[in-house]
Formats: sequence, C-alpha cells, structure tokens
Amino acid sequence: ILNIDYKTSHKRVTLPGLINISAFVPHVAERDSEDFAQVTKASLATGFTTINILPIGLTDSLQDARTIAIARSNGKNNAHCDYSLSVVVTENNSLQLTKVVQEPDSSFIPFIPFTNIPKMATISKHFSTWPLLSPIVTDAKGTDLATVLLLANFYNRAIHVTSVSTKEDIVLIALSKEKGLKVTCDVAVYALFLNTKVIPNSEHLLPTAADQSALWEHLEDIDCFTVGTLPYRLAQTLGKNNTASIGIEDTIPLLTNAINEGLLSLEDIQKRLYTNPQNIFDIPKQPDTYVEVEIDRKILITQREESWSPFVGKTLVGAVSRVVLRGETVYLDGGLFSSGNNGNVIFLKTPAVKEPLSVKESTSQVQQQ
Amino acid sequence: ILNIDYKTSHKRVTLPGLINISAFVPHVAERDSEDFAQVTKASLATGFTTINILPIGLTDSLQDARTIAIARSNGKNNAHCDYSLSVVVTENNSLQLTKVVQEPDSSFIPFIPFTNIPKMATISKHFSTWPLLSPIVTDAKGTDLATVLLLANFYNRAIHVTSVSTKEDIVLIALSKEKGLKVTCDVAVYALFLNTKVIPNSEHLLPTAADQSALWEHLEDIDCFTVGTLPYRLAQTLGKNNTASIGIEDTIPLLTNAINEGLLSLEDIQKRLYTNPQNIFDIPKQPDTYVEVEIDRKILITQREESWSPFVGKTLVGAVSRVVLRGETVYLDGGLFSSGNNGNVIFLKTPAVKEPLSVKESTSQVQQQ
Ligand SMILES: [Zn+2]
Ligand SMILES: [Zn+2]
Ligand SMILES: [Zn+2]
Ligand SMILES: [Zn+2]
Ligand SMILES: [Zn+2]
Ligand SMILES: [Zn+2]
Ligand SMILES: [Zn+2]
Ligand SMILES: [Zn+2]
Repeated sequence: ILNIDYKTSHKRVTLPGLINISAFVPHVAERDSEDFAQVTKASLATGFTTINILPIGLTDSLQDARTIAIARSNGKNNAHCDYSLSVVVTENNSLQLTKVVQEPDSSFIPFIPFTNIPKMATISKHFSTWPLLSPIVTDAKGTDLATVLLLANFYNRAIHVTSVSTKEDIVLIALSKEKGLKVTCDVAVYALFLNTKVIPNSEHLLPTAADQSALWEHLEDIDCFTVGTLPYRLAQTLGKNNTASIGIEDTIPLLTNAINEGLLSLEDIQKRLYTNPQNIFDIPKQPDTYVEVEIDRKILITQREESWSPFVGKTLVGAVSRVVLRGETVYLDGGLFSSGNNGNVIFLKTPAVKEPLSVKESTSQVQQQ
Repeated sequence: ILNIDYKTSHKRVTLPGLINISAFVPHVAERDSEDFAQVTKASLATGFTTINILPIGLTDSLQDARTIAIARSNGKNNAHCDYSLSVVVTENNSLQLTKVVQEPDSSFIPFIPFTNIPKMATISKHFSTWPLLSPIVTDAKGTDLATVLLLANFYNRAIHVTSVSTKEDIVLIALSKEKGLKVTCDVAVYALFLNTKVIPNSEHLLPTAADQSALWEHLEDIDCFTVGTLPYRLAQTLGKNNTASIGIEDTIPLLTNAINEGLLSLEDIQKRLYTNPQNIFDIPKQPDTYVEVEIDRKILITQREESWSPFVGKTLVGAVSRVVLRGETVYLDGGLFSSGNNGNVIFLKTPAVKEPLSVKESTSQVQQQ
C-alpha cells in the first residue's frame, strides 16, 4: 500500500492503530443489538482499531455470565475492530464476580448516579479478590474518587480513572501520581473542547470553563484520551438525535484541529490514543496496522441524518484518510471495506511489572507530500 | 489525703486525671458565656482534669483571632480543669489561619452538615501549611473520611478522627492503621451504649445496632473515648432539656458499668481516657493528680432538673468519689471545691517522634478496702 493521496496534496501522518479504552455501547447486554456493529464500524472508520467496551449500557450492563455471553455473541461477525469487554462491580455481584467471569475481563467500579453504587466494603473486597493481572477502572469523582484511590493504595492495585472532568479530580490524580500511587486516567475528548459555558443546560455533564482549563493545564497528567459516554449522554440530555456511534467521528478532527491551534502536538495525541493505553492495559500489538491522517485537510462538520454533533457548522482541520488493519486497507477516503470478521476479542491486562505506569513519549512518523 | 471511704466499704480504684479530647461548649465563641464554667465544672466533678474544647458551637465557632480571644477571655477565672482550644478549618479562613493563630492550637476539619465543609483543595492546603507539631482532628465520615485519610497520607500528617460511629468508618480506620497511616480515633461514650434501635428518632445521630456492634468488635482500634457533641445533639433532636454539661456525668458510670458487665476492663478505660489521649496529643502531665472511682457502687440515674439523660431510671455500677488536681482535693463525694482558677490553658501537640501512634497498655492501681 502506497501512501499517495491522489486527489490533493495533503500533509499526511501515519499513526499506529488507535485505541479507545472507553467505548459506550448503549444496548451492550441486549441480545441481537446492532449497536455492537455500529460502534465498531464507526470506530474503525475513524482510526480506532481497538476499543474497550464499557460494561454499562443504557438500561442493561455486563455483570454476570449471562450478560457477558450475550455481549460475546453480539460480537461474533459484528466486530469491525478488536475489542475487549469489561464487567461492572455492583453491590450484588461482587462476591460471585471472580467465579462467573471465567476469563477475567477488566472490571469497572461505577459511580454514575443511576447505577447501584458499590459500598466501601464492596470496593475493598473487589481490590482484594480481583485477579491481579485484570485491570480495574472507575469513573468515581470527588470524595468517591478519593475513596477508590485510598483503597487501591491500601491493596497496592493499579487503578485507571476514566472520564475525569473536574479540576478537583485532575489535581487529586496529579497529586496521587506524585505520591507514587499506581493511578492513570483519561479524559473524554468532548470534555476538552466543550464546556458548560458553551453548551447551555449541560451542567454536571460537561466541565465548567474553569474545570476545562485545569484539564488543559494538567495535560501531562492525562494518560489517555477517550470517546467515553459523554457524547451520548450530552445528546440525550439536550434532546438531540442519537446513535450508538455518536461522538466517535469527531474525535480525530477535534484533536488534529487542536494541533493546528497550537494546543496539542501530534506526539500528545499518539501518546494518549496509542502508546499509553497500550502500555497501561497491555493491549496486544496489531501487526501491519496503521492509520493515515491528513492533518491539514479542512472538514466542515455537517448535520448527519441519524446523529447530532455539537460541532455541526464548524470547520475543523484534520481527518483520517486510510485505516489499515493487519495488512488490509479497511477504510479509505470514506469507504469502509470491513466484513465484521476483522475484529478479535482481546483481554486487557495490568502489566505485572512494578514500573511506574506513566509512559515516555515515543516519536511518530510524519510524512510530507 | 487518705483513701478511706468512711461511709461504706467499696472497691476503689485510682486513675490518673482523665482526659476528654472532645468537649462541646455550646456558646464557645460568645462573650461572657457561662458555658465555659459549666463544662469545666462538670468535667472536673466527673474525673476529667483536662479537656480539649471543640471549636464549633451551636451558632458560633472558633475560627479567627477575634473568636479565639473571646474563648480565652471566657476561660479566665472560669476554668475548673485544664483545657485546650482548637480552631476550625473553613473554606474562608484556611489561608489566614496560620497567621491569625499565634500560638497554634489544634485544628479541626469539620464535616457536620451545618458547617461550611471545606473543599479538597482547602484540606490539602491545610495539611501542607498547618504547623507540623499542631494536631489535626476531623469528624469526617464515609467518603469524606477516606478523602481526609488519603490527603493526610499524602502530606504525611497524623490525623485524629473524632466521634466514629459507623461500621464502615471503623473498618476503614482499622485498615488504615494496618497499612501504616498515622491515624487515631475516638468514639463518643454514648455511641457505645445507645443506638437507633433503643432510642427512636435518633437516625444519623446514634449508630445503628449493627454499627454499634462493629464499634465493640473493633475496640482495639478505638484509641480514645470522648463525651463529644453527641449527648447535646441527641437531647436537641429529641426535644429534651439541655445544658452545656449534658452527658459528662454519665461517662464514668457507663464505662465502669461496662466493666461490671464484662464488656471492658479497667485498663481499657484508663488507656482510652488517659494514656492514649495523653500520648496522641502530648498533653502535659499534671503532678499529684488522680481520680478515685468506686467501681462497685450502684448509682440510680435520676432526672436532673436542668438536663436530661437517656439513662434516667437505670442503675449503673461505678462512680467517681474523689478528684485530686495538683495535690488539692477539688471534688469529694458530691462536693466541688474549685475556684475556677484551677485550670490552665494547655496546647496540644503531635509528638514529633515517628513512632506508631497507637499506645501500649499501662497498668492501673487497684485498691481493695
Ligand atoms: Zn487528501
Ligand atoms: Zn437495552
Ligand atoms: Zn441501540
Ligand atoms: Zn499536573
Ligand atoms: Zn463509697
Ligand atoms: Zn452563640
Ligand atoms: Zn450556653
Ligand atoms: Zn479491628
């Protein structure tokens, strides 16, 4: 495959296959749901060759052998990219979780209001019983986050905090890292570019302008970028059109546009969408897999029929032009060439090595044509 | 002074002058309040020769130079026992606290609902700026407690948790001790003997029966016993007669009665009302000071005119018969011989030594006549 842009001459960069460690699948535990295909397709077409699926859907969640079997079955013939599943830790399942999950996936300690928030004793129990190599992720915030960090520290477990969105939380995480806790975190890309001042009625969902500034100030403490549940929940809250794939498409244009605006470097992006998630979760490397991004192509975000975007009408700079998965071009300039058999199930792992989890920068290739 | 009981022959034990590190003074920051005299008088008459005064009163609190000056002035000629003051950490005063408090008292990070609960950044700031030798006390519970413990650990500060009342909290403190955190705690004596099952309408104030069992199960993790705010707040909640001295008188009879019931040893009591608080807060030793307790004397708790007790009508075993402060008998069989000039201001300190804060048992003298 030659990296030639036949139509125009764009500045093109090649990145490894990107990783979204926080993918939301609305009907994750629903038999024959199409969401699985929709999310993996949208992910692949925008450069994500690996995703980790959050265990909590709109109404159901992955929490026992039955629901995990449904998700595995939905994944068969519907996986356009590699994916891992995770299971939710609840007040009700924590005791049996290590039994029902035969190949332990990563686990998720939820603190979103509508879930069955686990008590301190349950979290302690989970830290002390969950297989050492299986990751633990949480979306805890504020004092809940402090509780999870304290307990993780007591049990000497690594913890990944997903969807950090406040100054208080990023400061606490930065301090925790400084003090040697095994904590890593991600921020949803929407939270970097939208705030409550810009989007009315988005309180408790988007960061405030001050919180957002703090996130940018602490960029070095943010290990990964993710899509997360934020795009879906934002559309839902604002009463906008919604699909399982909402927000995924905007990710790369938003980030490359930030390069153009001097806010990020290409290395910042590669580190947080590949190198760090790959290291933190010991994600299997995909041979001959890469993503070509035209980082100077202007794209106008237009209203899609199915799904809203808060960036409609905006022109962003940068777009994925080609995705190659294990030697095959699966996406090229708008066309998806993927059968649904491209994706493999993978299992996230916490690296057993006792090294600090934060990861050095690695260089990326930049080609100019 | 001879230890002879002229009236009856009772089993009498001698204890050091007792310490209540959590004394509630309702109008603590009110000029010319009589509460100061009332609390120190009641304390002295029941064996407490040293008390630490909580900075939060009913409506005012000790939080700046002005309010501390008022409390000091109220203490003049009104202190029947030695006392220390403490200052409250709030969202508003934390920055100036180290400046306005010239001789740094101990500080208190409050989480009671009606106070101005400090944010995580404020607590961090306090841990990093408060003089190293000056103690930090909190009444944080649940996830707030976890937050305080995490931050105390980050800043390598000792923290004392007052008025622990739930299973979750005592388990977290026990775990924290096990993991090497510099944490100590106390339980209000009322919380050991009253629970929500016994006293209707006392939810969120008294422990549940299950919480209370957990406190007893973790007795070895409870460093101190205190009077605390619980008696006052309980009377207030139940609409009962109330005075500043409420609950103080019940303390020793409740504890010695528990010896009689096989729940506690005399050493358990001495450790938690003298040895541990003395060590944790480096409290100056009072020469020639001791308390005589008749541990087999039955006393019927009767309705006092001014102040309610939940134990009215109960017969308890054990009572203070004599209190000697610095060589002078200040209390003897119902008579208080104290001028109000007996008490000195003292300053609590966190021992600078890096030893574990938990303290070995020491023996007490037991005399049989
Ligand atoms: Zn192009
Ligand atoms: Zn569903
Ligand atoms: Zn769906
Ligand atoms: Zn930082
Ligand atoms: Zn007697
Ligand atoms: Zn007042
Ligand atoms: Zn008063
Ligand atoms: Zn224990």
